[in-house]
Amino acid sequence: MSEQIVIVGFGPVAARLVDELLPAVRSGQVRLAVVGEEAEAAYNRVLVADLGVGRTTAGALALADAADLVAAGVDVHLGVRVKRVDRARQQVLLSDGTRVHYDRLVFATGSRPVIPNLTGINPDPASPVLPAGVTALRDLRDADVLRRAVDGGKRVVVLGGGVLGLETALAAAEEGATVTVVHNGPHPLGRNIDRGGGTVLAASLRRCGVRMAGNARSTGVEHNAPDGGFSALLLEDGQAIDGDLLVISCGVRPRTELAEGCGLSTGTGILVDHRLRAHHEPHIFAIGDCAEVRCPDPGCAACRNAKGPSGLVGPGWRQAEWLAGYLTLLASDLAGDAELLPAFPPEQPGVVVLKARGLNMAVAGDNSADPWDEEALTAGAVNGRPPLQIAQWADPEHGRYVKMTTRGGVLEGLVAVGMPRTAAELVGLYERSAELPADRSLLLRLDGPDQLPGAGSSDPAGTVCRCAGVKGAAITAAVAGGCSTVADVSKATRAGTGCGGCHEDIKGLIERHFSPALP
Amino acid sequence: MSEQIVIVGFGPVAARLVDELLPAVRSGQVRLAVVGEEAEAAYNRVLVADLGVGRTTAGALALADAADLVAAGVDVHLGVRVKRVDRARQQVLLSDGTRVHYDRLVFATGSRPVIPNLTGINPDPASPVLPAGVTALRDLRDADVLRRAVDGGKRVVVLGGGVLGLETALAAAEEGATVTVVHNGPHPLGRNIDRGGGTVLAASLRRCGVRMAGNARSTGVEHNAPDGGFSALLLEDGQAIDGDLLVISCGVRPRTELAEGCGLSTGTGILVDHRLRAHHEPHIFAIGDCAEVRCPDPGCAACRNAKGPSGLVGPGWRQAEWLAGYLTLLASDLAGDAELLPAFPPEQPGVVVLKARGLNMAVAGDNSADPWDEEALTAGAVNGRPPLQIAQWADPEHGRYVKMTTRGGVLEGLVAVGMPRTAAELVGLYERSAELPADRSLLLRLDGPDQLPGAGSSDPAGTVCRCAGVKGAAITAAVAGGCSTVADVSKATRAGTGCGGCHEDIKGLIERHFSPALP
Repeated sequence: MSEQIVIVGFGPVAARLVDELLPAVRSGQVRLAVVGEEAEAAYNRVLVADLGVGRTTAGALALADAADLVAAGVDVHLGVRVKRVDRARQQVLLSDGTRVHYDRLVFATGSRPVIPNLTGINPDPASPVLPAGVTALRDLRDADVLRRAVDGGKRVVVLGGGVLGLETALAAAEEGATVTVVHNGPHPLGRNIDRGGGTVLAASLRRCGVRMAGNARSTGVEHNAPDGGFSALLLEDGQAIDGDLLVISCGVRPRTELAEGCGLSTGTGILVDHRLRAHHEPHIFAIGDCAEVRCPDPGCAACRNAKGPSGLVGPGWRQAEWLAGYLTLLASDLAGDAELLPAFPPEQPGVVVLKARGLNMAVAGDNSADPWDEEALTAGAVNGRPPLQIAQWADPEHGRYVKMTTRGGVLEGLVAVGMPRTAAELVGLYERSAELPADRSLLLRLDGPDQLPGAGSSDPAGTVCRCAGVKGAAITAAVAGGCSTVADVSKATRAGTGCGGCHEDIKGLIERHFSPALP
Repeated sequence: MSEQIVIVGFGPVAARLVDELLPAVRSGQVRLAVVGEEAEAAYNRVLVADLGVGRTTAGALALADAADLVAAGVDVHLGVRVKRVDRARQQVLLSDGTRVHYDRLVFATGSRPVIPNLTGINPDPASPVLPAGVTALRDLRDADVLRRAVDGGKRVVVLGGGVLGLETALAAAEEGATVTVVHNGPHPLGRNIDRGGGTVLAASLRRCGVRMAGNARSTGVEHNAPDGGFSALLLEDGQAIDGDLLVISCGVRPRTELAEGCGLSTGTGILVDHRLRAHHEPHIFAIGDCAEVRCPDPGCAACRNAKGPSGLVGPGWRQAEWLAGYLTLLASDLAGDAELLPAFPPEQPGVVVLKARGLNMAVAGDNSADPWDEEALTAGAVNGRPPLQIAQWADPEHGRYVKMTTRGGVLEGLVAVGMPRTAAELVGLYERSAELPADRSLLLRLDGPDQLPGAGSSDPAGTVCRCAGVKGAAITAAVAGGCSTVADVSKATRAGTGCGGCHEDIKGLIERHFSPALP
């Protein structure tokens, strides 16, 4: 008899799992149901801000087609919530009263925006209803709200100095809105970046027309707009940042309440082991933003430095891919072999990339030490392990900054602002744990004035799309096979379906293929 | 009737003045007397440390030959002090009882080492007699003392983190002595260098085998050696730095007591105007380390930022050259035209260069601002003057550091450690007040691994010997004219007769001339 798999949630990570399970559905090995709260099937949430400034369309964001899935035999529930999970009966109870049996249940409930505690905003944490003129950037409705403000050339206040907030601010400013980013701390990106990089980044944002209000603690919102909506963000020091729309971009929090309600263990997210199984519950799994990989073994080395969910789509996609293989094996005649499958590999710490017209930034790893801080540099140097070493280029006048934190010549942290090719090269070296050239200044040459436009790293083994994990060679093959647009390449390889940061690189590979060879 | 010129002091600057006056002496226009306290005629004091470690000979240091001068008609007094100047009678009284008349008197008394106030050392400021095992580095006797310590592989303690102290320490360590440099402040060179450069410099010195004791306040010396001589330098925190020889290198102080004794105005040095004339005394002049150019006009713009004597030989030589022309005119039939001679031009702030095997450093101008210090950067930016901007490369692991402080693209300060070609290029740009390339990182390429050995800046208009002010073109011409050694070139052009820092560059120009052209 075939196994019944139920997926709770229908975001990008769930869509990937559905996709990967389709062969088993078609072969009759697996019966699959997916339950999505929104009226739409999965779409690319990462690009909601791009949609909000009119740079993409809702159609281009789609990651699944409900009709196609139904035709393939998937049981698709849209606009329906899971009210409760009955682990004893292995059933989920839906908001429309339906009960669905499961042999395996996968939580892919994702996360919800963190709404800070501000007077004038009192959202219910489980289902926030924000006042008029205040929005997060999570779904298609939020994109509409931003779209109206940008089209009207309104004043947008972005609360939060994370990558999503900065990208939204840059795009909105470029499309004609007056944008102010309000954030804690001396510079945006908080502890992800170091002081030098943060300072250059903030100055570059200002040059791009974004007002930056740093070291600002917000305390409340004022509703004095003619329609009673948002009119100003109030700060602790008595200042008020006037605006027509407040975009809250203060990070996300895993949606775990359904899992908690049925007695699963949670930390930051739903706790799962290295097979993405909920602790002490072999029938339930969790992937993506709602899942926290941390096994019950207190001595597990991989879990010692484990962090909570990354908030990035790439790790979730890799989990979906792995879990599909595991679930397919479990549902097959070879179920006994499933335990022989290598466990889901621990995620490398993520690379944070910001790409916008006139501004490029990449950050990864630990960048907290400064070149003169002997104590920080030698902190981890025990048992013959070499100390941290730092090489740093700072040219704030020209908006350029690079910091390479290495141990034994291999990057443990990187910051690159305003140097796109150096950034790409460093990210590649970081991901491959490759040794840097002894003369670190060689890396700066990649962004020198004598480099050919369109040149730069074209290592075919290098990853182009980090979200979907697609290498240059695969994209070049797709282009050689007939793909002539980014959308074609995305369809063929999944490259470019995540954060969109690699779209220019994909374009470059397409152009290189169709250009006459350089002399 | 010819004029009688008397020069008090016979160091390198006096020697240059004598040299330049010789034509007028030979023509009978001028009668010249020079009075030197030491038994030797002028020699290159800058290289006393090199002599002390056995890298050069006393003969090679000679800058004048007393017999030749006597033969040319100069009245040379050696081993004789001027006891008093009688301005009313225009006479100097010598220690051997001689009275010498002057029409023009030139003070070239130089400076003496600063001896810090330490218990166990109580020198008479006018003629310090240091205890056994303690020496400064000023004359040939001092060189002998250092020589014996280095030859014996003894422990040398250098007190003072200035360029002379560091060069002495590096050379002595390389020649086999155990050397410790003791200095105030967190890094050597004090306020001449910034924190980053100072930190990399200190680490580079350590790599060269020199022990660095920073943040150290010395309080006294201990005399427990078997011969009752120096045995340790005592620090405020109770530490003692053991050693066999203490070399005091704490800077110099102008020798002004003779000038004060005859009622001349002094500041840090003997005060002279822009014609190097003592204030209110048209018959007396001062040049070199004893002279402070600061005119009596309180509104003089050139004197507003004037500093005291530089302690470098180059400025003194330029003064000697200018003064020789002025004195020759005064003694001629065209005396009336002397006042038409353009005044002695104000000296540019000096460039401090340290060249040693395995260590290269150049520092100039103001390097106190850091790239993130908005306040310091905008401090001087008034009336449309652009703010300071800083570009900085730090790679302490590889002993490399560059900081370029610019205003409107032109250097106002530079630090370069461990990057000899970048340093040479920056010094050239600094001296010419030339604009830097917009991409400052281009300058780092000069020290990249792909540069040809012996390449680097070969601009013939660039200054090679900064002490004597000799450009590359003049050296190349001398080589083409038959000079095939540094000594030949020095004799023909004076290049390399000062600090010796350009000897390698002169060698390079000679080699280039005699090598077959590169393909």
